[in-house]
Amino acid sequence: MEIESTKWFFDKVNPHLLQLHAIEGTLFSGRTKFQSIEILRSPGFGKILVLDGKIQSSEADEFIYHELLVHPPMLAHPKPENVFIAGGGEGATLREVLAHPTVKKAVMVDIDEGVIKICKKYLPEYHAGAFDDKRSEIYNTDARKWLAESKEKFDVIIIDLTEPIEEGPAYLLYTKEFYQIVCSKLTKNGIISVQAGCGSYTELLNLKSVCHTLKSIFPFVNIYIADIPSFGGPWGFCIASTTLDAAALTPAEVDKKIKERSLKNLRFYDGQAHQMMFTLPKHMRKAIAKGARLITDDKPLYLYKD
Amino acid sequence: MEIESTKWFFDKVNPHLLQLHAIEGTLFSGRTKFQSIEILRSPGFGKILVLDGKIQSSEADEFIYHELLVHPPMLAHPKPENVFIAGGGEGATLREVLAHPTVKKAVMVDIDEGVIKICKKYLPEYHAGAFDDKRSEIYNTDARKWLAESKEKFDVIIIDLTEPIEEGPAYLLYTKEFYQIVCSKLTKNGIISVQAGCGSYTELLNLKSVCHTLKSIFPFVNIYIADIPSFGGPWGFCIASTTLDAAALTPAEVDKKIKERSLKNLRFYDGQAHQMMFTLPKHMRKAIAKGARLITDDKPLYLYKD
Amino acid sequence: MEIESTKWFFDKVNPHLLQLHAIEGTLFSGRTKFQSIEILRSPGFGKILVLDGKIQSSEADEFIYHELLVHPPMLAHPKPENVFIAGGGEGATLREVLAHPTVKKAVMVDIDEGVIKICKKYLPEYHAGAFDDKRSEIYNTDARKWLAESKEKFDVIIIDLTEPIEEGPAYLLYTKEFYQIVCSKLTKNGIISVQAGCGSYTELLNLKSVCHTLKSIFPFVNIYIADIPSFGGPWGFCIASTTLDAAALTPAEVDKKIKERSLKNLRFYDGQAHQMMFTLPKHMRKAIAKGARLITDDKPLYLYKD
Amino acid sequence: MEIESTKWFFDKVNPHLLQLHAIEGTLFSGRTKFQSIEILRSPGFGKILVLDGKIQSSEADEFIYHELLVHPPMLAHPKPENVFIAGGGEGATLREVLAHPTVKKAVMVDIDEGVIKICKKYLPEYHAGAFDDKRSEIYNTDARKWLAESKEKFDVIIIDLTEPIEEGPAYLLYTKEFYQIVCSKLTKNGIISVQAGCGSYTELLNLKSVCHTLKSIFPFVNIYIADIPSFGGPWGFCIASTTLDAAALTPAEVDKKIKERSLKNLRFYDGQAHQMMFTLPKHMRKAIAKGARLITDDKPLYLYKD
Repeated sequence: MEIESTKWFFDKVNPHLLQLHAIEGTLFSGRTKFQSIEILRSPGFGKILVLDGKIQSSEADEFIYHELLVHPPMLAHPKPENVFIAGGGEGATLREVLAHPTVKKAVMVDIDEGVIKICKKYLPEYHAGAFDDKRSEIYNTDARKWLAESKEKFDVIIIDLTEPIEEGPAYLLYTKEFYQIVCSKLTKNGIISVQAGCGSYTELLNLKSVCHTLKSIFPFVNIYIADIPSFGGPWGFCIASTTLDAAALTPAEVDKKIKERSLKNLRFYDGQAHQMMFTLPKHMRKAIAKGARLITDDKPLYLYKD
Repeated sequence: MEIESTKWFFDKVNPHLLQLHAIEGTLFSGRTKFQSIEILRSPGFGKILVLDGKIQSSEADEFIYHELLVHPPMLAHPKPENVFIAGGGEGATLREVLAHPTVKKAVMVDIDEGVIKICKKYLPEYHAGAFDDKRSEIYNTDARKWLAESKEKFDVIIIDLTEPIEEGPAYLLYTKEFYQIVCSKLTKNGIISVQAGCGSYTELLNLKSVCHTLKSIFPFVNIYIADIPSFGGPWGFCIASTTLDAAALTPAEVDKKIKERSLKNLRFYDGQAHQMMFTLPKHMRKAIAKGARLITDDKPLYLYKD
Repeated sequence: MEIESTKWFFDKVNPHLLQLHAIEGTLFSGRTKFQSIEILRSPGFGKILVLDGKIQSSEADEFIYHELLVHPPMLAHPKPENVFIAGGGEGATLREVLAHPTVKKAVMVDIDEGVIKICKKYLPEYHAGAFDDKRSEIYNTDARKWLAESKEKFDVIIIDLTEPIEEGPAYLLYTKEFYQIVCSKLTKNGIISVQAGCGSYTELLNLKSVCHTLKSIFPFVNIYIADIPSFGGPWGFCIASTTLDAAALTPAEVDKKIKERSLKNLRFYDGQAHQMMFTLPKHMRKAIAKGARLITDDKPLYLYKD
Repeated sequence: MEIESTKWFFDKVNPHLLQLHAIEGTLFSGRTKFQSIEILRSPGFGKILVLDGKIQSSEADEFIYHELLVHPPMLAHPKPENVFIAGGGEGATLREVLAHPTVKKAVMVDIDEGVIKICKKYLPEYHAGAFDDKRSEIYNTDARKWLAESKEKFDVIIIDLTEPIEEGPAYLLYTKEFYQIVCSKLTKNGIISVQAGCGSYTELLNLKSVCHTLKSIFPFVNIYIADIPSFGGPWGFCIASTTLDAAALTPAEVDKKIKERSLKNLRFYDGQAHQMMFTLPKHMRKAIAKGARLITDDKPLYLYKD
């Protein structure tokens, strides 16, 4: 077997499955106050951001991840003006949010100022100036605490966090108690999206548990999934609202809304993408229906341990 | 990073991406006349069949692969009676074909008798008795030669081959000349399906070239894709016919046909699966539209070299 | 980089150094009552015995390991008649002991009957009939307990154990208290040898701690080291006695003794080997002189944790 | 198995044996005119220099390599004044040569100016100012051509080259024809040393062939071997002369010479190291005695191919 590189990044999909990315070089390697951070260069995916050993996004396909996370709730909402982002350090979620001309204010709360600084410097293509947009407000504190103490309400709340690992900064932002806070900070037709982890048939615990936990609060909750090559397969997201059913949008409606919002730079998302990602085959529907956990502050879910 | 195993199978997705499967044991390891063959046991995927170093199928998700390959053409055809399978050594493609009560004869031509013997012994769950069904005819010769010399015509032809590698037995069964033979052996409403390789955004050369080559012969050609976890992501297939447009079937029509055929054991395929797998997001449609090659006997496509 | 195999065994030399062996097949994989056991086949080293994830010996170079462990104490002793082996499951240590015509009785105590059975079946070249020699007595119990309760004394005691890991069966057979028992069971000119772990400059903790602990009991203690390719580098042993100084033997004396004992099948050991392995370069002497720990029952040494 | 890093450098010892080093970061990664060059940082070995995918030296144990290569011929020679180094890009060979107060001129010819520049910048501990010593002359051209055209003669010639790979810059500096040129440029009591590759029992082809080829020219030729941990085991060198027998020096003579030359910073080399490294056990002497090739310009030896 001919392999291209002598240097490889080991990405653990699960204890019995590793994905190895060839590394051309390390642009940055260090620790912030909260986590380890590396920016690697891969021959296939360009620059790769790694936090606590997990790939967060790659230059080659971050557009899929960020369009998936942002546009379904933003387009489902009739006129999103105030938007809240929990996490989102790279600035690309913010970039996609600001692409909607309806947006008047985008508040992004990421606990880790270090990640933002390093991404600003090494990944300028990701934020594309979003941090400097007059509509942006950036805070470096715990997103849960910020939200709980805030008197503002938001039309769209986007949860863009690293996975819940025991030592990591995010595991208390995957619980029922957190989603209750989130729900209480939504405007009347408010809607949220959540990056919810691996969408592969054999690795659904996190995704279905996030979905199950959201359902304990929101009447409309849906899972949607699409392939993100640098993540090694399909990735899952949840969308939830008290009043809006994003999954029910037809391809034609999605395409019409994209046109109305003048979203000209979309590379992944359109009516067909919408239909594909909200449609799950039989085995996936069945697998998601059973074995999910309610995630609570008392019994949080730790990836790789549960 | 805690990893579960000391033994790993290296699956090369491409020169800069490796997928490593933990191995619990090797049930079989050897060479047939045509290729190397191994049957490994993985903690996550159960038994794994490996030919020439590439995973062919795993116990845990072979149902996805084989349902994907077989049922779209079988259900698109109004009454498939004679079916031809090129390759298909494990016997699971045959198993799915024989599930259709309309089938009177299923001819399977796999050049490698060794693979069939070893699969019969070590993977009985795969064929589930299909080789012993009275409707089955098995030949061990080159499928292209057999088809070219045959006077029979078939309602459905299913191409279930290993990938086209330079030293492998299959690369001349991916060419325009081969598909011309296939086309000439179809009955009036005949239809074919082809396993066509990786369906990941960054690795589409084989899939789009097979599609492009089929389009030089058939008026109706479609790509469809679904995630197969043990393959490390989405996998692509083509369906082609002179008269039938399988992609146009609605979810309701698919569900109705499944009922009519009494296909009670389907785990992946149903109306929603059908819709999902034939719907491609924007970046996939765009990527597939450009850079495809016409594959011919003179200029075959060799995976990992082209 | 061209690599030969798709299957690899990961041998952890230390947390930042892995050695990967290509695997042709798995002859056996399972668990005994005490540990995991695998017999793999490598293209370079033939059959490889793995206990709890660590290579114990390989067909290609087990002769080095077993000659190193056995012949220095056996030849240093003027007339070894009663020999005790702690561990030694493969039977190859026993084989080398029995090669000495002076031996009247060889007692081998290995806690793990399962290992012996599996080695007997899969590694017949290793024991070469030693288990059936009339002079052999095999017991399957804890070697420390057996020795403590025994009324016999031995001319040579050979400690051939797996490394001291927290979950493993051997860590209490590396302590001062154990060596005291060993010492009390030696005849007047008795001598012992101990396999003591990695002999590589950067990984000497176990070796130097075993040496240091032995020195708290025996007046004559020496380290000796030789390269064992399948172990990924040099391996270290200790030899200790109340009265005999094995290290002081000249090459000529060693060669003379080999001749007197009619040891015709030695492949590694001779006068020059003896001189080489007892001679340590400056950096090794210095590294061994500092930082060693006294290993006791209260404060055992756990490899990879200390 | 707990592994420390997510990034690993794959060092191919041979097609069935890989050594993986954890990587903390990449200080430099690029190509010179002649080869790829990387400077990595490992938690265990510090900075590691990699040329064409092979480890050349590490911060933690380069002292072993460079003392081994330099001091045996330098001390065997009664008064080395003019010294020639072929290769030696890092400058550490030059550093050790200049430590001998007898030296009046040290000529270093390394084809690859790029390697020297990068090592000067990133590995200042290696050269330790040697490039700026008034006695140093550095040329960037082919060492064979330079030597062939030179009218100078040298007391000691040190061959410090990368391994002979087909695409690499060094394979014509391992041939009989090259050693003839080298021999013709020695003063009357001249002596040479050669880094000659892996010294592991199962991987001796290069080492024994270099030795065999040298013997076709020089009356006194010896192999010597010592463990270099970052290389993954023992490493082999040859020493050759028309008149001097370096191997015959006793430990006491070596220690006396070290004192006379005031070599106070030696960490590896002393009388005992000398004795150890020139003494080979039985299986090594036997393995080296058979199967060596005569390396010639017409039939060069390519590592990993022969």
